[in-house]
Amino acid sequence: MDFEYSPKVVELSRRLGDFIDRYVLPYNAGWHRSVAAGVYPPPFLADMKALAKSEGLWNLFLPGLRDDEPGMCLTNLEYAPLAEIMGRLPWASEVFNCSAPDTGNMELLHLFATPEQNRLWLRPLLEGEIRSAFAMSEPDVASSDPTNLQTVARREGDEYVINGRKWFITGAAHPDCKLLIVLCRNAESEEGDKHHSHSMVLVPMDTPGVSVVRNIPIMQHHSPEGHCELLFRDVRVPAANLLGAAGEGFAMAQARLGPGRIHHCMRTIGQCELALALMCERTLERHTFGKYLADFSNVQDWIAESRLEIDQARLLVLRAAWTLDKLGNKAGRVDVSAIKVVAARLQTRIVDRAMQVFGAMGLSPDTPLAYFWTWGRAMHFLDGPDEVHLRTVARQELDRARENRGATAAYFTLPESPSRME
Amino acid sequence: MDFEYSPKVVELSRRLGDFIDRYVLPYNAGWHRSVAAGVYPPPFLADMKALAKSEGLWNLFLPGLRDDEPGMCLTNLEYAPLAEIMGRLPWASEVFNCSAPDTGNMELLHLFATPEQNRLWLRPLLEGEIRSAFAMSEPDVASSDPTNLQTVARREGDEYVINGRKWFITGAAHPDCKLLIVLCRNAESEEGDKHHSHSMVLVPMDTPGVSVVRNIPIMQHHSPEGHCELLFRDVRVPAANLLGAAGEGFAMAQARLGPGRIHHCMRTIGQCELALALMCERTLERHTFGKYLADFSNVQDWIAESRLEIDQARLLVLRAAWTLDKLGNKAGRVDVSAIKVVAARLQTRIVDRAMQVFGAMGLSPDTPLAYFWTWGRAMHFLDGPDEVHLRTVARQELDRARENRGATAAYFTLPESPSRME
Amino acid sequence: MDFEYSPKVVELSRRLGDFIDRYVLPYNAGWHRSVAAGVYPPPFLADMKALAKSEGLWNLFLPGLRDDEPGMCLTNLEYAPLAEIMGRLPWASEVFNCSAPDTGNMELLHLFATPEQNRLWLRPLLEGEIRSAFAMSEPDVASSDPTNLQTVARREGDEYVINGRKWFITGAAHPDCKLLIVLCRNAESEEGDKHHSHSMVLVPMDTPGVSVVRNIPIMQHHSPEGHCELLFRDVRVPAANLLGAAGEGFAMAQARLGPGRIHHCMRTIGQCELALALMCERTLERHTFGKYLADFSNVQDWIAESRLEIDQARLLVLRAAWTLDKLGNKAGRVDVSAIKVVAARLQTRIVDRAMQVFGAMGLSPDTPLAYFWTWGRAMHFLDGPDEVHLRTVARQELDRARENRGATAAYFTLPESPSRME
Amino acid sequence: MDFEYSPKVVELSRRLGDFIDRYVLPYNAGWHRSVAAGVYPPPFLADMKALAKSEGLWNLFLPGLRDDEPGMCLTNLEYAPLAEIMGRLPWASEVFNCSAPDTGNMELLHLFATPEQNRLWLRPLLEGEIRSAFAMSEPDVASSDPTNLQTVARREGDEYVINGRKWFITGAAHPDCKLLIVLCRNAESEEGDKHHSHSMVLVPMDTPGVSVVRNIPIMQHHSPEGHCELLFRDVRVPAANLLGAAGEGFAMAQARLGPGRIHHCMRTIGQCELALALMCERTLERHTFGKYLADFSNVQDWIAESRLEIDQARLLVLRAAWTLDKLGNKAGRVDVSAIKVVAARLQTRIVDRAMQVFGAMGLSPDTPLAYFWTWGRAMHFLDGPDEVHLRTVARQELDRARENRGATAAYFTLPESPSRME
Repeated sequence: MDFEYSPKVVELSRRLGDFIDRYVLPYNAGWHRSVAAGVYPPPFLADMKALAKSEGLWNLFLPGLRDDEPGMCLTNLEYAPLAEIMGRLPWASEVFNCSAPDTGNMELLHLFATPEQNRLWLRPLLEGEIRSAFAMSEPDVASSDPTNLQTVARREGDEYVINGRKWFITGAAHPDCKLLIVLCRNAESEEGDKHHSHSMVLVPMDTPGVSVVRNIPIMQHHSPEGHCELLFRDVRVPAANLLGAAGEGFAMAQARLGPGRIHHCMRTIGQCELALALMCERTLERHTFGKYLADFSNVQDWIAESRLEIDQARLLVLRAAWTLDKLGNKAGRVDVSAIKVVAARLQTRIVDRAMQVFGAMGLSPDTPLAYFWTWGRAMHFLDGPDEVHLRTVARQELDRARENRGATAAYFTLPESPSRME
Repeated sequence: MDFEYSPKVVELSRRLGDFIDRYVLPYNAGWHRSVAAGVYPPPFLADMKALAKSEGLWNLFLPGLRDDEPGMCLTNLEYAPLAEIMGRLPWASEVFNCSAPDTGNMELLHLFATPEQNRLWLRPLLEGEIRSAFAMSEPDVASSDPTNLQTVARREGDEYVINGRKWFITGAAHPDCKLLIVLCRNAESEEGDKHHSHSMVLVPMDTPGVSVVRNIPIMQHHSPEGHCELLFRDVRVPAANLLGAAGEGFAMAQARLGPGRIHHCMRTIGQCELALALMCERTLERHTFGKYLADFSNVQDWIAESRLEIDQARLLVLRAAWTLDKLGNKAGRVDVSAIKVVAARLQTRIVDRAMQVFGAMGLSPDTPLAYFWTWGRAMHFLDGPDEVHLRTVARQELDRARENRGATAAYFTLPESPSRME
Repeated sequence: MDFEYSPKVVELSRRLGDFIDRYVLPYNAGWHRSVAAGVYPPPFLADMKALAKSEGLWNLFLPGLRDDEPGMCLTNLEYAPLAEIMGRLPWASEVFNCSAPDTGNMELLHLFATPEQNRLWLRPLLEGEIRSAFAMSEPDVASSDPTNLQTVARREGDEYVINGRKWFITGAAHPDCKLLIVLCRNAESEEGDKHHSHSMVLVPMDTPGVSVVRNIPIMQHHSPEGHCELLFRDVRVPAANLLGAAGEGFAMAQARLGPGRIHHCMRTIGQCELALALMCERTLERHTFGKYLADFSNVQDWIAESRLEIDQARLLVLRAAWTLDKLGNKAGRVDVSAIKVVAARLQTRIVDRAMQVFGAMGLSPDTPLAYFWTWGRAMHFLDGPDEVHLRTVARQELDRARENRGATAAYFTLPESPSRME
Repeated sequence: MDFEYSPKVVELSRRLGDFIDRYVLPYNAGWHRSVAAGVYPPPFLADMKALAKSEGLWNLFLPGLRDDEPGMCLTNLEYAPLAEIMGRLPWASEVFNCSAPDTGNMELLHLFATPEQNRLWLRPLLEGEIRSAFAMSEPDVASSDPTNLQTVARREGDEYVINGRKWFITGAAHPDCKLLIVLCRNAESEEGDKHHSHSMVLVPMDTPGVSVVRNIPIMQHHSPEGHCELLFRDVRVPAANLLGAAGEGFAMAQARLGPGRIHHCMRTIGQCELALALMCERTLERHTFGKYLADFSNVQDWIAESRLEIDQARLLVLRAAWTLDKLGNKAGRVDVSAIKVVAARLQTRIVDRAMQVFGAMGLSPDTPLAYFWTWGRAMHFLDGPDEVHLRTVARQELDRARENRGATAAYFTLPESPSRME
């Protein structure tokens, strides 16, 4: 057991941090001005990406990269602290070609793409030439139970014909978004096994019948990449656009989510660290009723609680990353459910405290806090509501208890207590 | 970074667990019957201790043991999982000569005892022949601010004369308790530096003038070892009974607390794991309103929350142990404050859930839960109230913020926001 | 709408408070000394009761008293503030013949007793000559779902023969406890309607076959009146000891609980007010790290939160009392579930804060806090666990929502949102 | 004590509810479309106001109205349930000329305006012909401590010259906003009593030197009425524009806040009731993992908790309204602080649960929830952060404890406990 980052990770963190400090952060205000002016992505992004790529700070997230693919081939545990650093600035991940949902999509393609799919989609994604989206959630059903999904892909000759509605599809409004990976119910398997009746289909964004109904604001926040509502009306794609095996869509989606959630969670940690730093600085500047906020013991409690919570959460996420590396995505499934809940709560709780310390300014767009909270709140359902993940954790715990029935008996103080005896 | 216990620890854990399962747990009901009948310690304890010692499961807690001293010389990180195992059964630590407050006292003596003090007190403690207590808290003052302590040691010739009152002195009612380490204010240094005006004095339990006023119940729980109120009236001990340097009592107490808190916290983790296991088993047995408690989603939430909280807390405690090993007790001071708060909250929170699942039985003495809660509640002030430790954590955080003033500026969305500008 | 107590209540509160201050409180320490010495009830209690009775401060809790019965015939709303005053001192209610479970039992008898039952049991209870207990909970089943109850009454000729085990039967250890009201399953109706298969039977305490197995401590607190485990082995009572109609035991128990819970809740409010007062006084006396606890903003937060919570809870309880008076016990059923949850939480939360302010002393028996917490914790399942009551509240809410389906539609910001449309 | 609304209030509630159902709610979607299209206020508002006025549903909030002034002259307690009804639909209050900050401003003018000020400003406000804003908060200081305010009014001859910056000034972007009531520090009294050195000045919106720097979004929500940042640069108004006495600005602001906070809190209750109704309906429609959300016990807990919290909060707010009516705004100051904290927490907590039940849709603009949460979050600092109000409550509690020193002594279980004795 060792709680220190490896020298390789320490060095990479330093390089990444320096790059951001020097080349990215100075453009932060410019970024927001550009987006506010409707210019998205800002023109300077392409140069930043090129520079990051040339320095090798590129595709840091993908453990299984082949030699001929650009990137570093880091483990999840190695990538985690880098995701934390990128997370502090929400638009930074794209600079290093590490932004969701592309990361998960590249992972999926890396595992399942045919050579042709690889050439057409994975390669441009790895190069940062295009972006993509993953279309799963639907407006009319509880998408957390994926057997509810209604968007249908019907096989007609050499084509799939897709009909349905998706929403909160992140990234679909990005001008460079060229690919949708769509989770569809197979029209054919309607009577079959509910967990083997969905498939993933690659749908080019410009396919006739695909329309972006709207870009849905989240807590009034209008994201430039979009969380879009999409309509699929008789959308036809070649049968060769099936990704992986037919009917395996769920299992693939499940596998896809593990590392992606680690990334989300570590970015959350980064945002929480920043929120805590902002809160601390503010308490040192703000004076009221005769003293600095930093000298009020209730504010001190908030600061200390935040530190305790962040440190615990980070350790849990890192351990989950280590588990994925060591035992595989499937074995880490419950650990990943656990961190998803922990991270979402962490973010809304800590940012909420920071907002309170900032007063009205904390709700304004002048600080990153309002957006951080919004994103944290969304994480409470992103990839499944907290409650579904808690259920997953509880079930594992109960399974263990079933296996160990009777193991606690000897610890009862009064083993012959009536309710034990009879 | 590595989240796996070393093979040595895995092996030791197995051995310790086996020992407890085979030789200790079967006597659990007997222990409670004996204590209820006023026979304490139960007669079988001595044999158990001898067996544990002969198997080398002895003094597992002390990293700095010399070759000629009995014990294993484990690091804090190695000992931590063993403390967790022992913690499940509150009276088990004594079997392995690992029970508080002896552990902390042995540590103190190990660091500061003169050869004579070593011979008289440390050796018998290491051998498990006697027990001891540490007398710090006082009834009339907030002991969390140690400059408040009022018990005075006045030098008269070759003697110290001690007067004062202490309370909640754990272990002082144990029949084998032969030694008190008493934190006293030096009569001489009253005008001096408040943080260098206290000393530790070794007071044999049978010194004239020492009296046990009462054994104070905690949440109505009457501990057989006692949390005693002690009166010191003109208690005279040789000047040679001074432990360490005069005026250094605080610094020594501070140092003493680090590893001891790790132990407490890991025992807490052990109790919380047991409480969770009890809760899970119970939900699988208890049927109400047409289904098992295990099938209610609110109960599932409690189970899952408990798992998330325990796992996070354990990682934080282990990291603190690792820090103490790596950087020393002083460097780990804030980490130790952090885990103390986390562990106390963990214990009352998780045990409370378990009690609720058990219904009225959870408050009865038939399960270990009521005692676990009580001990957890006491931990909220034991060695300083939570609030003092939170303050310690907050101060470190604020110090860092002071050093990094301005580091967050570039993250503001609107750097020219009026409240930043002017 | 009016938030002022009536002049009658104000006057009664003053009289009751004066009586307690003058005649009861001065004996508080004596009470605890007597109980500790095993003398229970203390000899002075009888005189106090006689004095209270002679001043008319007697049976204040029973709205339906007849002219020839001793007592005041107050409404629930009038009694509530008096229960709050008595609640501050846990043993005070008995002085005024207002202690549970006698109050609920008198209410039951008042509603359902035959003239003979009245003469034998109600009259002596109203006069304060005997005490009684109500035997419902059982160790082997989840008693919150009363259809689980297993104690059986079998009709044999002119007798009922009762077999079973009950536990946590409050009051059964009181030396004056002469009557048990036992909720039994009818042996005959085993196949019938689960909610009409239980009856209440009056069982004199000294009936052969009734035995007190033990007095179960609650959080290690050994109550002198007892929370007892009782064994019924072939206990024979005349058929005339049936209380009310056969098979109506549940409905009667339900009705019984309404006013009794109001009383519990108001006593809780009284204890919470006292805990808050204790906490405030302590913060004004205790000095640490250079200031009084009262000057720390986190402690101020605790005080303020406590005030907000107590005031809200009291209003809710008073409104429930008003509802019972106005609409009857049945109509107030959900309101009574609501206050039961609110009061239990209030008590553990506020007393916990007060204990923290008192430090270790707060866990000791020197203040009333440890006992208050214990009682509050027990309230989380007393008369049904919180979760069962929350379920009751939720069901009413959901029923209302079902009736008002569609009422919220016009408030949707985007009525044509896809998930509304389709 | 009586918990029923008076017949007058019941009748008014019915009339108001009917009016909203019939004439206002059907325009809800149209309202949002109009605002989204930049047409604010929507053209139909004027007709609605005229209709409401003609039906006498006008200026319901102002207890002190004179006969010749339009409105109903209701007490705070009578108005409270009407505010709750209006609160369900955030834009409804304006229909009845009951929207903040006009209400508070009318109240101030009603108390302090000279006949000329009355003619120029109060009368048009009462008639609903203009709107107004109240300029207090400043960006550079903690405005919760009003002695921090920096905007200066300097007397020059017959004029005041105002310089400074205000922000989060609600209503200042409304096209009909003609009047700012500005809280200024008196240049002259800089050395004087901090609490008597500020004045209120009436500043017509079109005075040269007044500029709206921006309309600040709150949690990304861009309010059409605005929460504006205002700059005052050498703004000159006649000395006759002083409102009330010079130096009395704080006392006046304090008085102004009482009823206004009642209104805010009751509107909060209305929004929370709606959020709960939305949540319940949703749980009856949404099906996942084999059952309706309404059948999950954790969701039931959320529903029940929400009911308990809303009912308690409403009672507390109504009692505060009753106190203001009975004892005046000054006597009710602490009660008003209390409800402000309770209501803000209520709103974020309940709406958060409702959002979770709605999943991603709950964060979208399709339901009113995201806005309700935003407004609730803002209430945590609106008119002073929660912490300042908690402090006010705590201080009153501590003052009472000081007055009653020793009152708890007799309740100690062990009066001779050492920490009491010495």
